[in-house]
Amino acid sequence: MLNLDRLAINQVTTKAWKLPEAIAGYAQAGVRGIGIWPEAVESCGLANTRKLLNSHDMVVSSYCCGSMFVARGAAERADQRDRNRALVEQAAEIGAHCLVCVSGGLPPGHPDLHAARQCTREGLDELLPYARAAGVTIGIEPIHPMRVAEVSSLTTLREANALCDALGAGLGIVVDVYHVWWDPDLEGQLERAKGRIVGFHLCDWLQPLEQNLFGRGMMGDGVIDIAGIRAIAERGGYTGFYEVELVSRLWQERDPIQVVRTCIERYRSQC
Amino acid sequence: MLNLDRLAINQVTTKAWKLPEAIAGYAQAGVRGIGIWPEAVESCGLANTRKLLNSHDMVVSSYCCGSMFVARGAAERADQRDRNRALVEQAAEIGAHCLVCVSGGLPPGHPDLHAARQCTREGLDELLPYARAAGVTIGIEPIHPMRVAEVSSLTTLREANALCDALGAGLGIVVDVYHVWWDPDLEGQLERAKGRIVGFHLCDWLQPLEQNLFGRGMMGDGVIDIAGIRAIAERGGYTGFYEVELVSRLWQERDPIQVVRTCIERYRSQC
Repeated sequence: MLNLDRLAINQVTTKAWKLPEAIAGYAQAGVRGIGIWPEAVESCGLANTRKLLNSHDMVVSSYCCGSMFVARGAAERADQRDRNRALVEQAAEIGAHCLVCVSGGLPPGHPDLHAARQCTREGLDELLPYARAAGVTIGIEPIHPMRVAEVSSLTTLREANALCDALGAGLGIVVDVYHVWWDPDLEGQLERAKGRIVGFHLCDWLQPLEQNLFGRGMMGDGVIDIAGIRAIAERGGYTGFYEVELVSRLWQERDPIQVVRTCIERYRSQC
Repeated sequence: MLNLDRLAINQVTTKAWKLPEAIAGYAQAGVRGIGIWPEAVESCGLANTRKLLNSHDMVVSSYCCGSMFVARGAAERADQRDRNRALVEQAAEIGAHCLVCVSGGLPPGHPDLHAARQCTREGLDELLPYARAAGVTIGIEPIHPMRVAEVSSLTTLREANALCDALGAGLGIVVDVYHVWWDPDLEGQLERAKGRIVGFHLCDWLQPLEQNLFGRGMMGDGVIDIAGIRAIAERGGYTGFYEVELVSRLWQERDPIQVVRTCIERYRSQC
């Protein structure tokens, strides 16, 4: 049975709870990690967030997410750089295991995938020295290819590994089973990612797609071989948190206490 | 400007037309190739289909599609084998440039992606000698990873190339820009596919996904760099048809004559 010490829950999973309630609610259920969004920190206050985390002995498994790296021009690009630097500082302040960065989709009005990928690489290259100095690890997260136009030109672990190879220390990979489970190269790229996995997100892929496009499933309710994917990461030496990140209106509308309980049960039985 | 001789239209694009009307309608507009579905041949009759094709000097760019290779047991598997063999015979009879085969998703009740991939490989391996003897090329088509659970465990050109390497003569690849445009390895795998591309499907990817999950776009209405992808295939020596396969309720509801006209215009201006 999996050790509860390594379970984290992303606050999006219990959206009815504000951040203070989520920190307290997870802690009370015995969960030790939490994934936090900047909007919540902004509303709760940075110092207050840190105080709440400390008082509940709660660790931030991920701070998500860094601004997109696709910009319409120099001014927008400068804004994004500033925002990402501010997020690095916040991540350092709350002791986040990583600042998750999602690359962004196609530049508005210029659907050029090559350009989008180049922007991501340059944006990360620019942010990394700043993050290293702050002691914050940047976690790049490959997102499912169905979201390439709107959310992320970075879609595969192979690309994430190549970026880590190219950009060096301070950069890691966040694996989300929902985004990578389909990949025929999954095992090889997870092995290649040995030592670089800085986050591991859990949920499930429901069928049929038509009815579940933006509702992810609780672990065990879908078709992903979560335990199999997790085992590869473990063999590669992953010792970090497993963070349930359940973006699902269905689950968000339920009683958060019940949702947390189900997360724990399914983490133990299905992962 | 692209040569109209290489334009084909898949009959799904003008669903209001039955097969005889589609053959006549495309021919009248100067289109020389047609993609045909087995259901249409069944309803039109095989001999009659061949006669209509001949009398309009129309070529079948693709016969789509071969049965899924995922089965629930030995009996279902035997049924699929028989159906695929019948499709090979029909493809030979109508002189189809290839029989498109889509691998199928996850086995019902057993969401095992490795097993699904193994089934595809075995199914193709079994079908190929039969297809070779009939002089029919099998075209495997990688399908977008968002459809892996329901439609196709085969998602990337890399996998398709590996299958061609492994299974040998008689097997080719059908490239559909809608399914592969996101792939970071697109250029390399298209180059690797040199000499094996046996079909090339055109349409476009519309944004946002939420509103366009099952409505593909007319070339030029979306974000795919169709001309760029086509150019790579051309450099690799592709000389076959470009087949517009527009699965879209919006376009299917329009006047087929107008749709064909738009296909021709967009083929010339956007591809």
